[in-house]
Amino acid sequence: MDETITLAHGNGGRRMRALIEQVFAARLGQPDTQADAAPITLPEGEVLVTTDGFTVQPVTFPGGDIGALAVHGTVNDLAVSGATPLYLTLAAMIEEGFPLALLEEIVASLAAAARAAGVRVVAGDTKVLPRGQGGGIYFTLTGIGVRPRGCALGIGAIRPGDKLLVSGPVGDHGVAVMLAREAFGLRGDVRSDAASVLPLTGALLPLPGLRFMRDATRGGLATVAHEIALGTGHGLLLEEEAIPVRESTRAVCAMLGYDPLYLACEGRVLAVLAPETAEAALAAWNSLPDGKAAALIGTVGADPGPVTMRTPIGGLRILPELEEDALPRIC
Amino acid sequence: MDETITLAHGNGGRRMRALIEQVFAARLGQPDTQADAAPITLPEGEVLVTTDGFTVQPVTFPGGDIGALAVHGTVNDLAVSGATPLYLTLAAMIEEGFPLALLEEIVASLAAAARAAGVRVVAGDTKVLPRGQGGGIYFTLTGIGVRPRGCALGIGAIRPGDKLLVSGPVGDHGVAVMLAREAFGLRGDVRSDAASVLPLTGALLPLPGLRFMRDATRGGLATVAHEIALGTGHGLLLEEEAIPVRESTRAVCAMLGYDPLYLACEGRVLAVLAPETAEAALAAWNSLPDGKAAALIGTVGADPGPVTMRTPIGGLRILPELEEDALPRIC
Repeated sequence: MDETITLAHGNGGRRMRALIEQVFAARLGQPDTQADAAPITLPEGEVLVTTDGFTVQPVTFPGGDIGALAVHGTVNDLAVSGATPLYLTLAAMIEEGFPLALLEEIVASLAAAARAAGVRVVAGDTKVLPRGQGGGIYFTLTGIGVRPRGCALGIGAIRPGDKLLVSGPVGDHGVAVMLAREAFGLRGDVRSDAASVLPLTGALLPLPGLRFMRDATRGGLATVAHEIALGTGHGLLLEEEAIPVRESTRAVCAMLGYDPLYLACEGRVLAVLAPETAEAALAAWNSLPDGKAAALIGTVGADPGPVTMRTPIGGLRILPELEEDALPRIC
Repeated sequence: MDETITLAHGNGGRRMRALIEQVFAARLGQPDTQADAAPITLPEGEVLVTTDGFTVQPVTFPGGDIGALAVHGTVNDLAVSGATPLYLTLAAMIEEGFPLALLEEIVASLAAAARAAGVRVVAGDTKVLPRGQGGGIYFTLTGIGVRPRGCALGIGAIRPGDKLLVSGPVGDHGVAVMLAREAFGLRGDVRSDAASVLPLTGALLPLPGLRFMRDATRGGLATVAHEIALGTGHGLLLEEEAIPVRESTRAVCAMLGYDPLYLACEGRVLAVLAPETAEAALAAWNSLPDGKAAALIGTVGADPGPVTMRTPIGGLRILPELEEDALPRIC
């Protein structure tokens, strides 16, 4: 094998076949690399589909890499929808010159994350981008899962008075990736929160008062709050003091002028719950490793909308919808 | 709306929402842009999944553009597997600075191709790549389809003595894209063959002697021949005189030193048939607009393997497996 990716690894010929068999198929449990389309078997239930592109730069960062991130990001979209993720497809766009050893490391990490989440990669595609037309490596994953029929989870199920529960400290992924770029001359000990949220979502699904879940990714917690306000037509009131933010993340944000509420997470869930279920949900999450810092952070149905935050001294601050992109290629 | 794509169109905030609603959702029949995952309904049968990345450069070319090409390429992988394509997911990676009007044109073309093929785009994702880290626009599509249970199509069904049938002239897509680059100072009248092959595959599926179909894409007809030889362990003998190649494509290839058998097609199918079915299959294709030039071009089970071609004067030429990439970003 070569030491870096060449255009010939994407041309459909012998070297592409070798790359796919030796790097991808070998680690991903030998999916059939000969077929145009892969058969899948689906259990009884409602089938859900999601797709996501991953462009994070750098491709490895404290707490993760683009391979594991891609699996988690895709699996999490199914998890928050109440589905059991079952299958993934994987399309890679690799820039000419990308180191083969790094590709192997990333694919191994992707495969491990898929195994841990109980999903199988059943189909794939590889394209090589000429030097200068890619940014190292990009992945697009599509996830297929199944949830029980009649699942009532959704933005439409949210009612005024419902409580907002977040599963852990927000903004760590954004800060970890930013620091890994070293563009700021800073070094910190913040690790990405990138993880499968299946344990978190699984713990809440049996609760009858669960209305809606969403993983806070691009645009952070504030963006999910806006999506809920927009989808329900109700204002949201957040309690600033209640929102968990790691001290180190807060310090980096203060130094650089970022607001952690707008920074990407990749393993945090915002759940909306009927008031009578909120404490049980909080207890369920607090008992999990990834939910120890979970907190009730606000209420649906506030004036003025769409998203308002009560500050520690009791003032009200409007949280605007995200405008300019603080951090491109964060996920 | 802005005139070009900015980083803010990919940040999860207001401008990304506007882009998705005004450019994508409006043309793609208003899929639910609020959900993390989309529910789909599947009829009885075996479910098939396929995924493909599209990076063609330039993004428009005679006979097509990256939007229609992406739909056709994905739908065709399901079609040659004997499946009815039903759903697509669409992930876009757009480079900062990409003209919004061109994006709208491409998405309209993608939507029209999807409608014509009878598939619905049910989920999507948009990422913006900083200037210099993308190549204009890249798409990744995943297709989901269903075929009758017990479908015996596959490379494993191929037997020695089976006949090879190609649906039309090969290499047009590769030449059309190459000429559209104007990198060669050439202008030609070759149009891409990019198209849905559903009418072609549908015409053969009822024939009992149909063993296998594949659309010839990257690496061209010669690469599909090698895949069949590799998958069956039998050599293939092709008849050079029988292989349809358009005169204009042949002329460009002769001038530039390309072999049309290795150039990409995006709307041609190679079918393998039991000998007693071959003539009926040829007649079925010849009666279709995209199959008028269909031809029986060879036989499975030849010495020496893997792929040999009989020249017009009766000599035998070995067709090697594709090594170097003649044309990157061709699909």
